[in-house]
Amino acid sequence: MSKQLPLAAMDACCSPLAREPLSASQAAELAKIFKAISDPIRLRLLSLIASHGGGEVCVCDLTSAFDVTGPTISHHLKVLRESGLIDGERRGTWVYYRVHPEVLARLSAVLVPAAPATAPA
Amino acid sequence: MSKQLPLAAMDACCSPLAREPLSASQAAELAKIFKAISDPIRLRLLSLIASHGGGEVCVCDLTSAFDVTGPTISHHLKVLRESGLIDGERRGTWVYYRVHPEVLARLSAVLVPAAPATAPA
Repeated sequence: MSKQLPLAAMDACCSPLAREPLSASQAAELAKIFKAISDPIRLRLLSLIASHGGGEVCVCDLTSAFDVTGPTISHHLKVLRESGLIDGERRGTWVYYRVHPEVLARLSAVLVPAAPATAPA
Repeated sequence: MSKQLPLAAMDACCSPLAREPLSASQAAELAKIFKAISDPIRLRLLSLIASHGGGEVCVCDLTSAFDVTGPTISHHLKVLRESGLIDGERRGTWVYYRVHPEVLARLSAVLVPAAPATAPA
């Protein structure tokens, strides 16, 4: 039903960046995904899709949340889709989007700091 | 010793984006920080600093890892510093950088997916 994850991009990215230095290729792959969420509209779109109870969201329910045109929303959704964070499936008139929780989980894991922010007493 | 975190930026960002939709202002603040790590060199710099055993890294130990000029490294470090991810302190000839683990932890928390990637059996 949905496409496979960009596993080549994700395989090398799961160790926290605070545990050992990222390689150049790991950093290049991750930077592309972070670039996809470096735009406020894309970040809100990702959040709307990821937080939707039903697991998927019709594009027809996404555009109304923004003061930008439909084609602009479509462009941002395409960038998110190309990053591997979301997937879309056309059914009839509309495209339905869902998040890839594995990709979110791996980005989250990469950013885990090495140690607690405060030392134990 | 080190500057305060950009708390105004971080206060509103700790709920996972998959739990409830980000507001426009939350997304704007987070997008700035993700933009700082949307560049491979900055991501590697952040990882080198965050994974350094001693907690801080001399800029003199960072430049040798890259095939770019010192001023380019300085520019990238400035972007990371302005995002709140790292802080720098000049001591004598050199600037010493350390990560703000709280900011990394909060970015990590924002990206936690809503549910496990696979349903329980």
